[in-house]
Amino acid sequence: MKLRLYGYWRSSCSWRVRIALAYKGLAYEHVAVHLLQAGGEQHRAEYTAKNPLAQVPLLEVETTDGARRVAQSLAIIELLEDLHPEPALLPREPFARARARQLAEMINAGIQPLQNLGVMKHVKSLGADPHVWARHFIARGLVALEAEAAATAGRYLVGDAPTVADLCLVPQLYNARRNDVDVAPFPTLLRVEAACATLPAFEAAHADRQPDAPPPEER
Amino acid sequence: MKLRLYGYWRSSCSWRVRIALAYKGLAYEHVAVHLLQAGGEQHRAEYTAKNPLAQVPLLEVETTDGARRVAQSLAIIELLEDLHPEPALLPREPFARARARQLAEMINAGIQPLQNLGVMKHVKSLGADPHVWARHFIARGLVALEAEAAATAGRYLVGDAPTVADLCLVPQLYNARRNDVDVAPFPTLLRVEAACATLPAFEAAHADRQPDAPPPEER
Repeated sequence: MKLRLYGYWRSSCSWRVRIALAYKGLAYEHVAVHLLQAGGEQHRAEYTAKNPLAQVPLLEVETTDGARRVAQSLAIIELLEDLHPEPALLPREPFARARARQLAEMINAGIQPLQNLGVMKHVKSLGADPHVWARHFIARGLVALEAEAAATAGRYLVGDAPTVADLCLVPQLYNARRNDVDVAPFPTLLRVEAACATLPAFEAAHADRQPDAPPPEER
Repeated sequence: MKLRLYGYWRSSCSWRVRIALAYKGLAYEHVAVHLLQAGGEQHRAEYTAKNPLAQVPLLEVETTDGARRVAQSLAIIELLEDLHPEPALLPREPFARARARQLAEMINAGIQPLQNLGVMKHVKSLGADPHVWARHFIARGLVALEAEAAATAGRYLVGDAPTVADLCLVPQLYNARRNDVDVAPFPTLLRVEAACATLPAFEAAHADRQPDAPPPEER
């Protein structure tokens, strides 16, 4: 099966999927969709035909039955887990699995949608400051995540192996810093982030290391 | 295993979980968390100790090892699927599973977070009209969902058996109407909604039939 990932270097949802692919050792073709250039390449008709929500990431899988497309980062990661269960990104025990999915959703549904590009543009169009908006929701979400994590984290957010929750955490903390959220009140999250940073899959998937990342002085 | 669901009659995420419980024939104790009364019962310390994000639903499962808690509706539904696989709310075939999860996430991460109570309050505090805001994001999401569904829906959003995607669709359409979104441009979604309405589990889980729903004249 040939994999093709439509993504953007700095998109936190693309980044989650890149970590999953790298962690499972799956090679893929990278197709850059520039979210800012020319009003956003994700709005072009040839892209919205593939993903009507005009968002990245989008995974195309070439199978013997033709190309299959999946959007939504957590749906993509669950598919990769179903097709390539090892190394696992979900614990086996049902309540630990549920916890990994809960913490992932606290970011995926609880934080990220409120601070993505489209929403920030909309906030700006109302005359409000999109960074103040983003800071509010990122901080609110991370406070809750720290409380949950402090109670039960191991080396990673759920136990001592990385899970889908960690895949969501690392890009979200990067976004937090970009929006000047003070991350000092989140010691558990920072400890887990540091543990993740030592893993080759997380290193390879980092935004700054992607082929479509601009040179450091232009970021 | 004894199940306890903290929810609110009109919360679309609580509603999704109620459908899953009813569909799988699982009895549960219902604990009403009134999201509006006295500033919102979800903000009380005894509740945020259980769920720091101060949101419903929250599932408590009494096991022989003590009480286990899971928040985030899709994490709860996946747990119910792991513990009670039949009747299934996810197809078996990996790409069909992925599609059900994708369509669920298009609502769970793509629409609902942008029109929930906390966000609408925040929009109002900026001096903008929260219903205009909600309408924009609900319509944007449903346009994309209709495009995806029109291409591949069967009797339900994915094939001819209900999936987690349908659990998300039905409460989201209810919210759309509450916010005066014109749903006429979404014939596939309306057809699927009508098919869902004939199923006892969807009927039992409907907001208006919950013990904490106020009488019709006060809704």
